[in-house]
Amino acid sequence: MIKLDADALGRRAEAMHKELARISAEPDRLVRLFLTPEHRRAADLVARWMGEAGLQVSEDAIGNVRGRMGEGPRLLLGSHLDSVIDAGIYDGPLGVIAPILAIDAFKRAGVSPPSGIEVIAVGDEEASRFPTTLSTSAALVGAFEQTTLALQDAAGVTYAEALRAYGKDPAKIATAAIPPGAAAVYLEVHIEQGPVLESKNQALGVVTAIVGQTRLAVTLTGIAGHAGTVPMKLRHDALAGAAEIVLMVERMAFTTDGMVATVGSLTVYPGAVNIIPGKVRFTLDLRTASDEQRQATVREFDRQARAIAARRGLVIEIATTHGIATVPCDPRLQDNLAAAIEAVGGKAIRLASGAGHDGMMFAKICPIVMMFVRCKGGVSHNPAEYASPRDMGLAVAALVRFIEGFRP
Amino acid sequence: MIKLDADALGRRAEAMHKELARISAEPDRLVRLFLTPEHRRAADLVARWMGEAGLQVSEDAIGNVRGRMGEGPRLLLGSHLDSVIDAGIYDGPLGVIAPILAIDAFKRAGVSPPSGIEVIAVGDEEASRFPTTLSTSAALVGAFEQTTLALQDAAGVTYAEALRAYGKDPAKIATAAIPPGAAAVYLEVHIEQGPVLESKNQALGVVTAIVGQTRLAVTLTGIAGHAGTVPMKLRHDALAGAAEIVLMVERMAFTTDGMVATVGSLTVYPGAVNIIPGKVRFTLDLRTASDEQRQATVREFDRQARAIAARRGLVIEIATTHGIATVPCDPRLQDNLAAAIEAVGGKAIRLASGAGHDGMMFAKICPIVMMFVRCKGGVSHNPAEYASPRDMGLAVAALVRFIEGFRP
Repeated sequence: MIKLDADALGRRAEAMHKELARISAEPDRLVRLFLTPEHRRAADLVARWMGEAGLQVSEDAIGNVRGRMGEGPRLLLGSHLDSVIDAGIYDGPLGVIAPILAIDAFKRAGVSPPSGIEVIAVGDEEASRFPTTLSTSAALVGAFEQTTLALQDAAGVTYAEALRAYGKDPAKIATAAIPPGAAAVYLEVHIEQGPVLESKNQALGVVTAIVGQTRLAVTLTGIAGHAGTVPMKLRHDALAGAAEIVLMVERMAFTTDGMVATVGSLTVYPGAVNIIPGKVRFTLDLRTASDEQRQATVREFDRQARAIAARRGLVIEIATTHGIATVPCDPRLQDNLAAAIEAVGGKAIRLASGAGHDGMMFAKICPIVMMFVRCKGGVSHNPAEYASPRDMGLAVAALVRFIEGFRP
Repeated sequence: MIKLDADALGRRAEAMHKELARISAEPDRLVRLFLTPEHRRAADLVARWMGEAGLQVSEDAIGNVRGRMGEGPRLLLGSHLDSVIDAGIYDGPLGVIAPILAIDAFKRAGVSPPSGIEVIAVGDEEASRFPTTLSTSAALVGAFEQTTLALQDAAGVTYAEALRAYGKDPAKIATAAIPPGAAAVYLEVHIEQGPVLESKNQALGVVTAIVGQTRLAVTLTGIAGHAGTVPMKLRHDALAGAAEIVLMVERMAFTTDGMVATVGSLTVYPGAVNIIPGKVRFTLDLRTASDEQRQATVREFDRQARAIAARRGLVIEIATTHGIATVPCDPRLQDNLAAAIEAVGGKAIRLASGAGHDGMMFAKICPIVMMFVRCKGGVSHNPAEYASPRDMGLAVAALVRFIEGFRP
């Protein structure tokens, strides 16, 4: 086992995050979008770091920076360089910087990793420029959709035009694909973006699955009326019905292990202080670690919501607007990662990822696993996002231990 | 007792409503605002009708059309000629047309009413032109507020300018006041604007009070977060808290006799499908027939809402934005009106008025009472507003019976 100084690794990780964070389209906040001059500068910086760590660096046809080492089926280690608008500095970069520091630790120790390695920095995860996500990891697994090329950004620039301006040929995207059999495993390090690790007082966690989700749009129609003249028992108040459904959903989520449910948007019509609400539209975002459980939950929601509407004399319409299946993390890899975390003194918390990640794409070609790192207050997609140097150092150390034990 | 044909009276009432409804600022919908050319034409038509019924007609300094008959303390009978935008044709006019037809019935029978009578058609009840209401009945009771004159309509025309353009001198408004002691009682006939009479299968009702109201603005602040990454038990979801309060209010209103409570407006921040609501603002409109009950209810709401917020870790702010006291109808007049309704074959339903009316102003100078007339589906402030000729005929007949029995 390589001798490691987690604190020193953490300090380096912090410095690298700060250096990368200086690359922004705006002086006062972090904005680093796909295929922009900032993406170019970030890719160049990451390529330099990869090279310094001893990786053989290349850039593929869709702009992914890739650093290889060793032979045989590869342990893929990566994350994304693009950011949301007004972002934090850890979401994405940590999954690129941690592997670079881990590989660098091998170099400093004069030891080679026991398997092939490929560190990957992709460019499109946050969907902040084009209305698509994971298109760059899709290219890596041979699943890039040609229709993506016609998508436009806010300025009317197409994905294909942006790619050409970045110096890439859209016709060559297929060449970015990792050859069949070359990918052994994909491992991504990422800040948790939630409060679970913090609440359990642990730095690191093992992701059990990237959860699937269903989004519903619900419309409840009652009868609008004068707030003063319609007695309570003659009302068909759409908002009161919606309130009952919001609480029903909350109760279902509380009593179903691993489920989260959110009514994030709700609009009242006509929405005047002295008019009984005649109509309410709201959204429901439902996530569970198992697809069967989620489908059962959606059916149960449907049944209970219709019963509430019927009892109140309201008309209900329920439409599914989005659905994506759960991607499980490989159980053996979870155990190996947990052992690596325990080897650096941690207690490996198992938790599902409620947010989507590039791993969802890599799961098409190989087993995946993710390591989560505690972030302060669970805050992400916000300048207040924070992961401590100490926690990042532990993550790099655990990653080194995982690589040491890894056999394809 | 005068011999009456309620059906014939109803047919005349319907024809008069339709004639008045033709006076509108727009060809395809009813819009008749205060101090406009339509107000002028409506006032002239009503003055003609009053004269034909044998009343001595005048117009006061604020544009109210007034028809007098007889000596001594007057039974005041009236309502308003202005409409909301895209109005129904009964809200207001019925309270002017019914008294005119009642007085006309005396004339046709060759009998004089046993008391002094004044039929009044006021111009500002709906607050559709200027941001004020009941200003014309305020002038009648000597309570006109001079600050009203500076209020502007949507085109920037002040109340004073509109009054001058209508041919009136703002300096003479005080002359519109009914002399002290001249008002014996104020009685207003109005469509119910609610579904109670229809639900009880009765044409006419006796109003027990014009209910007071309290309006509150409530802000709940929780913590916004990622819909996928924050577990249920670590959430502080402002919308879930608001939903609990909405249902608490509904339960309070259901279990408190005569109370109505409405959350009519509710806004979620930030209001995205995948973000846990961090803040919710909503309004509460609370009406009860007794001020003590309303104040107790507001206190109880405050207590329970704060408890819900505290249990959920939400910050709550509750502000009172509007408050007006209940105006009771005189118990003896209620009994007399009930007897008059029974004399024409009705069953006098007692009910509170949840909406405001000019009677609230007249209560400053004399006892008041109101007769409600069934309207289809409880619909009002809408072209679908409808009162049947039969019901209006019964209302006129009951009014005649009331006048016959009235002694100041």
